[in-house]
Amino acid sequence: MDPVNELQPLDGVVLQELKQLTDSRGAVLHMLRCDSELFSEFGEVYFSEVNPGAVKAWKRHTKMTQHIAVPVGKIRLVLYDDRENSPTRKELREYEVGRPSAYMLIRIPPGLWYGFENIGPSMALLANCADLPHDPAESESVASNEGPIKVQWLSES
Amino acid sequence: MDPVNELQPLDGVVLQELKQLTDSRGAVLHMLRCDSELFSEFGEVYFSEVNPGAVKAWKRHTKMTQHIAVPVGKIRLVLYDDRENSPTRKELREYEVGRPSAYMLIRIPPGLWYGFENIGPSMALLANCADLPHDPAESESVASNEGPIKVQWLSES
Repeated sequence: MDPVNELQPLDGVVLQELKQLTDSRGAVLHMLRCDSELFSEFGEVYFSEVNPGAVKAWKRHTKMTQHIAVPVGKIRLVLYDDRENSPTRKELREYEVGRPSAYMLIRIPPGLWYGFENIGPSMALLANCADLPHDPAESESVASNEGPIKVQWLSES
Repeated sequence: MDPVNELQPLDGVVLQELKQLTDSRGAVLHMLRCDSELFSEFGEVYFSEVNPGAVKAWKRHTKMTQHIAVPVGKIRLVLYDDRENSPTRKELREYEVGRPSAYMLIRIPPGLWYGFENIGPSMALLANCADLPHDPAESESVASNEGPIKVQWLSES
């Protein structure tokens, strides 16, 4: 695999470092503002708690653009591109995302498969600020071991 | 103090129970949707981590309406009304907010003083989805022991 291309995100994915304003009481953690170049429309903000060792995969949206951040703990985020005509079709990307060393916003456009697992010793929390409210009609899910591509999840190793 | 009036929120404050969809991997936690009657405008979403025993108080916004939820841990939220002409002027309210027994959305209109402290054994996380992005010109802060009203914070007892 081309090591340079490996560093490029899948087409339409954006990663953006986020500020952590830390003091002795606890950090203030930025996520998304209306004047960000990544912001388009507000649909819904919600959280997904991930217990130690838990895997949440696979899912794909047909319309929703997600903006995710991990303000607690650390997850491994896996993205797989099976979009027709995408310049990164059949490519896979993995990111370790979370606190405190990799606190970032990740834009996931519609059409990408995604899944994540907790890779830390304690609970992790993923936040999603999406451009549409939840609608089961615009997403599909398959089991973590039956995804569009074989991934070795930590809890299976 | 009138025990019935004590149960009424301060004028403009709304409390709304939020759904927690729990399974063995971790809960999905609702916060705010664009079609909620509480939603007006998207300004910014960010987080405030509160270490065990830490107090974050006092603050007051002149323009921002906040929507807060506590997806991790438990906090004591204190609200004080010093708004001229408010029907609840000079009144104080306190709420224990957090997981899993008191997961809710709280709308705090501009003009109210607010502060919070972690009342659990581990880190708590407060999320704020506000109708304006952060602007230091529209808020004022005073120290937790110099607020508009004397409150006995747990860490001081």
